[in-house]
Amino acid sequence: MRDTLTVISQRKSVRHFTDREISDGQVEVLLRAAMAAPSAKNKQVWEFVVINERSELDRLATLLPYAKMLSQAPVAIVICGDVSKNTEESELNWVADCSAAAENLLLAAESLGLGAVWTAAFPYADRMDAVRQITGIPEHIVPLCVVPVGHPGKDEPVKDKWHPEKIHYNQW
Amino acid sequence: MRDTLTVISQRKSVRHFTDREISDGQVEVLLRAAMAAPSAKNKQVWEFVVINERSELDRLATLLPYAKMLSQAPVAIVICGDVSKNTEESELNWVADCSAAAENLLLAAESLGLGAVWTAAFPYADRMDAVRQITGIPEHIVPLCVVPVGHPGKDEPVKDKWHPEKIHYNQW
Repeated sequence: MRDTLTVISQRKSVRHFTDREISDGQVEVLLRAAMAAPSAKNKQVWEFVVINERSELDRLATLLPYAKMLSQAPVAIVICGDVSKNTEESELNWVADCSAAAENLLLAAESLGLGAVWTAAFPYADRMDAVRQITGIPEHIVPLCVVPVGHPGKDEPVKDKWHPEKIHYNQW
Repeated sequence: MRDTLTVISQRKSVRHFTDREISDGQVEVLLRAAMAAPSAKNKQVWEFVVINERSELDRLATLLPYAKMLSQAPVAIVICGDVSKNTEESELNWVADCSAAAENLLLAAESLGLGAVWTAAFPYADRMDAVRQITGIPEHIVPLCVVPVGHPGKDEPVKDKWHPEKIHYNQW
C-alpha cells in the first residue's frame, strides 16, 4: 500500500487503456473521493455524469480532439458545476470546487491502480458544447472536464515538476 | 499509516491551531505535493508565497474576513496563478490548475497530521487586493487562495458530503 504522498507524486496522466472493465464499486470509490473535496461555503456545486455506454464514449471521442482515448476507456466521468448556486460575484467558485473534486478523483484512481486523465472541457466553448450535446446536461450545469478511466495500457512516465524557483517567501 | 482513500475522506478544514511551529521540511513536502498536480498543457502556471513572518500573518488576518485563523497559524501558503502564460481563451485554466495544486497541498497536510484550510482570495476583488498589498505579487500573478497550516488545535469534524443524487448515468 502506497502512502498518500507517494500516490500524489506518482499520479500521472494515463492515456492508454486495456479493454478490461472497471467495476461499479470502483466507480463509486472515485465518486466518493470527488465528493470529499472542499467547496466554497460548503455548497458542493459539483455534479457528475458517468458515461459507460460504448456508443456514447465513442461519439464523445470523435467530438473532443484531446480526448480520443475515450474510444479505449471503459468509463468516463464528466465533472460539472452548477452555476445557479452562486451569486454573480462568486460564480467562478464552481471551477475551483470542481477542480479539487477532479484532483481527488484522479488520486483515487491512482491509488486503486487505475489510470485516468483530466481532459478539459471548460473554458473551451466548442468542447463544452460537445459535452452538452452528448450528455444532455441542462443550461445551468457547466462541464469542467471529462476524465476517462480504465486499466493502464502501458507505463506512462511521471513528470518531475518540482521547481523551487516558484516558491517565494513573505514578499514576492 | 492511512491509505490515500482514507486521507481523502478524512481531510477536513482545520481552523484552530496550536502554537507549535511546522518545519521547513514539512513546508517542502506540502509544496512538492502541490507541484505534482496536473496542469493544462503542462504549463504549471502556479506560484507560491510562503508566509511565515508573524507580523505578515497578523496583517493578513486583519484584512481577510474569512481567514482570521491566520493570527494563530505558524505558516500560510498563498497559491497563485500566472495569467500571462495562457491565451485569452484559455486564461481561466489557471484556476483549475491552482485548485488541483491546492487540493494536493491540503491532502499532504492531512497525511502529515497537520491541519489546513482553503480560504478563498479569488474571485473576490477585495480579498485579492488585500493579498496583493501584503505579499507584493506582481500584476500578472493572481492569488487563488490563502492556506493557513499548523498543528490542529482541536478535533474538527469531517463532513459527510456523499450525495448519490449528484450522479447521472450517460444522459442527464
